Order: sequence, then structure tokens, then C-alpha cells
Amino acid sequence: MAAQIIDGIAFANQTKQDVAARAAALKAAGKPVHLTAILVGGDHGAELYAERQGDGCRALGIDYTLLKFPVSISQRELKNEIRRLNKDVGVTGIMMHLPLPDHLDTARLQYEIDVVKDVEGVNPANIGYVVYKHTLIAPCTALAAVELVKSTGVQLRGAEVVVVGASVIVGKPVALLLIEQEATVTLCHIATRDLMAHTRRADVVVVAVGKAGLITGDHLKEGAVVVDVGINRITLPDGTRKTVGDVDFESAKEKASWLTPVPGGVGPVTVAMLLRNSVRSAELLK
Amino acid sequence: MAAQIIDGIAFANQTKQDVAARAAALKAAGKPVHLTAILVGGDHGAELYAERQGDGCRALGIDYTLLKFPVSISQRELKNEIRRLNKDVGVTGIMMHLPLPDHLDTARLQYEIDVVKDVEGVNPANIGYVVYKHTLIAPCTALAAVELVKSTGVQLRGAEVVVVGASVIVGKPVALLLIEQEATVTLCHIATRDLMAHTRRADVVVVAVGKAGLITGDHLKEGAVVVDVGINRITLPDGTRKTVGDVDFESAKEKASWLTPVPGGVGPVTVAMLLRNSVRSAELLK
Repeated sequence: MAAQIIDGIAFANQTKQDVAARAAALKAAGKPVHLTAILVGGDHGAELYAERQGDGCRALGIDYTLLKFPVSISQRELKNEIRRLNKDVGVTGIMMHLPLPDHLDTARLQYEIDVVKDVEGVNPANIGYVVYKHTLIAPCTALAAVELVKSTGVQLRGAEVVVVGASVIVGKPVALLLIEQEATVTLCHIATRDLMAHTRRADVVVVAVGKAGLITGDHLKEGAVVVDVGINRITLPDGTRKTVGDVDFESAKEKASWLTPVPGGVGPVTVAMLLRNSVRSAELLK
Repeated sequence: MAAQIIDGIAFANQTKQDVAARAAALKAAGKPVHLTAILVGGDHGAELYAERQGDGCRALGIDYTLLKFPVSISQRELKNEIRRLNKDVGVTGIMMHLPLPDHLDTARLQYEIDVVKDVEGVNPANIGYVVYKHTLIAPCTALAAVELVKSTGVQLRGAEVVVVGASVIVGKPVALLLIEQEATVTLCHIATRDLMAHTRRADVVVVAVGKAGLITGDHLKEGAVVVDVGINRITLPDGTRKTVGDVDFESAKEKASWLTPVPGGVGPVTVAMLLRNSVRSAELLK
């Protein structure tokens, strides 16, 4: 059996259409979506990335402001900037490009972002609301992985789900979001004794480790739904470079029923989820 | 093999001694621990319970104030009371007796409690901080269950842990706290297809469902560590009433290496964890 490929690009495009319609409705109601991004001491690459993000927003009718701060900005100054944005009724969403310089405490600054304006879902309170089954804004990558699982139509209630990788941004929120769907979830990680024993019994496997080829067809149950969050740059024997996921695509597609490609799977949907969260924030504020 | 019994009362007493010493040190430094509890429209039983809690605090050198509000108090009024307590430098801890009357939004009010003064660890941000491996104040019952697991000396890194029950207050935070210890954690619940398959492979089982006799010796691997959070009142054939856990004690103790009794297991430790959290809040504020 050859797996059906989960088309992240198509899913993202569909989401963007929906986002554009909702953004237009908000604008018509006099409440335009306005995302403000914070960039501290970014290099040229980071600035370029942020500018492109701005283009992506504007294309869907989302206003975008990039606030650039010098690398010397203090914790207090940046905190006050965030508090000012929290109060600014013209700003509906706030995001902070990472990494921040070492002298800044990322977690404390994320905690300062208003829970509703927190379009990346990184404020600990937003993670807590996911635990409370009261999700306001969930982290974008986790949300993307879960949306792609759902897009296959797999029955999640009672399903055996194995999440590989226990990161704060992906693994743990994915686990929590799938528990919310009443799946039985096992969270595996570097210290797991027998990873294969877990993945082999799973109806759904989500992998977010950052290790090329970690999960092969041998790790999978026949018919599993597999979502690959990993993005790894590898060098092939002939010296060319290639982007691959954590799942060995060729062997996995012989066992899985559904499988995301890398690139073209979770990546584009993550971008779309930031846009969707941005509209959601504005709707919640309305 | 007969399990060793995990003595919750002894653990609680030891914790209380530690709490008393830390509370005395804070008092000597001019920063006494002062827990303020909120009770809305409580009946006589609830008041009695709260007063007893106050006695327990004072016995360890923790000041305790019980604020009673009429059942008619509005969301805004109670929110303002919490905000006032947040700002009051003489108040080091805040807790809210539940349930609140139906017209009040419990989750939103818990979110108002200052994260450091939140001695019950119920503010979503505190749950989020647990996910972030940055725990400030964890929920008391979950903390009690995890402390009792740790008290057995079981190696948690890489251990197979099964948590039965996915409640917000116990199951999910227990799972998160044990992931923080690098255990491989599976969270089972009412929709789990084959509970026994999971519990039988577990080195550690934590049960928090509220169903007497749910887990028997048959569910356990030889030598498992078993912590029973359930508290159920049952009626025996002869009409007498008895308090039991979710684990069938007699059969489980033939398989487990360590087992908590009910009563005398997690219950007293939960009370002790509230006291320990109260001292921790005051120390964090210092």
C-alpha cells in the first residue's frame, strides 16, 4: 500500500483564502487585523524574513508593522514596548521574532504579551488554556501538525497517538491538542527506552525531533497516519544538499496510509496558522 | 511479593516540618507568609472546612485570612477583590475555594490571580510554565502524586509511565511533571481502547479517575509503582461505608513494588503541598 500524500501547500492555500475572507469582513466592520512584529538586533537575513512575512500578511488584507530594536535594548524597555502594544487598540496581534539576544529573558517577555494578541500562542497562559481545554491561541507549528492529522479524517477519539519529541513549541502542545480530541497519547523523546515499540502500535505518529531518517517504515504500523514536523538539511553522497524531514519518506510511504512530505507538508501550514491566529485574535478582540 | 506501602501521612508530616522552618525564617526576615482564601457564598460545611484550613496554616506559622463574599457578588467585583489582593504586599498567597456560584467564570477569575501568589497553581499561566519546564507553582494534587512517586526512589528517566485520567487538575499536570523528569508518559482516559495493555507495560501507574476498583492487580506489571489519587465513598455489603481509591488495594499490593493507601496516601500530601506552595510563593516574592 502506498500512502496518500497530505498536501500541506493545498491546505495552506485553502486556509489563506479563509483568512482573507475573515480579514476583509473585519476591515469592513472597521476593525482591521493589524499584526505587529518585534525584531531585536536582527541581521540582514532576519530582516528579510520579517519583511517577507509582512508581504504575506498584506497580500491577505492583514496590516503588518515591523518594529526593529537595537541589540542593546534592555529587558525593561522591551517589556514596556510590549505593554504599550497590549494597550494599543489599533494593534490586534503581537509576535516576537526569536532568538532574542542572550541578555533578554524570552519566557518573561512572552508572558507579557496579552493572551488574546499572542498570535504565536507562546504566552504560558495560552499553553495553559490548551491544557484547560479552553484553547484561545495555540502555538502555530503544533496547530499545523494537528490540522494535518485531522485533514485525513482519521477518527481521533480513542486512537493510539504517539508523539515523538517533547519540545515546548511542538511536541507537548501537539500531545495536549490531541488529548483534547480524546486520543490516547504517548509522548516519546530522547530518553524513551524503546521508541519502536511505541510507534509500531500507533494509529497516528507525529514526529518533531530534528533528526533526518529517525522514523522509517519499520517503525510504523500498516495504515498509520504520519505527520512529519522535522526540517533537516542533509548532504547527499553526490554533494548536493536537500531538505528532508525526520521520517524516511520512501520506506514510510509503503506502510503509512497518509504521510506529509518535507518540504510541502507542515511548513507551509505553520505559516498559514500564524495568519489564521492573527485573524482569530482580531475576532476575539472585536 | 507484597508491595511496600507509601506512607502519605509520614511524607506530609515531614513536609510540614520543612514548611514550618521556612515560614519561621520568612517571619524572622520580616516577610511573614500570609495566605488569603476566598470563599463565595459557602454553606456551613464549606466555612468549617476553610476555618480548619486556617488552623492548619497557623499551626505552621502561616497567617491565614478567610474572606467571605455573598453569593450575589458579581464577576467584576470578585475580579477587583483579586486584583486588590495581587497588589497587597502583605498578602503572599491567594486561593479560591471552589465551586463558585454558576454566574461566575471560574477560569477567568483563576487567570486574574497573580502567578506567584497562586498557591494552588491553577492560573493557566502556571500550568503553561509546567509545560515550559519552568515550573513556578504546580497544582497541589498533581504535585502530591508526583512527590509520592519520587519518594520511592524509582528511576524516572526513561521509565514507562501511564497516567489514568486526563483531568485538568490532576491527570494532565501529573503527565507534564513526569515528562519533565524525562519519563515516557502515556495519558489514558475514558476513551482509551485498551487500558490494560497500557497499564500492564508501565513501571509507574498514577490513577486519578474517581472510580473504585478500576485498577486491579491484573492491570499491573510485577514491581510497578502505583499511586492512587482517587477518593471514593463506597457502601459495603453489610451497609457500612468506606473510603477507597481507584485501585483495588488487595490485589494490587500482590503485584506492585510500591503502593499508596487510600486514605493516608495522596490526600494528606495534597494538603501539605498547599502549605509548601504557600511558603514557596512567599519565598519567590521576597
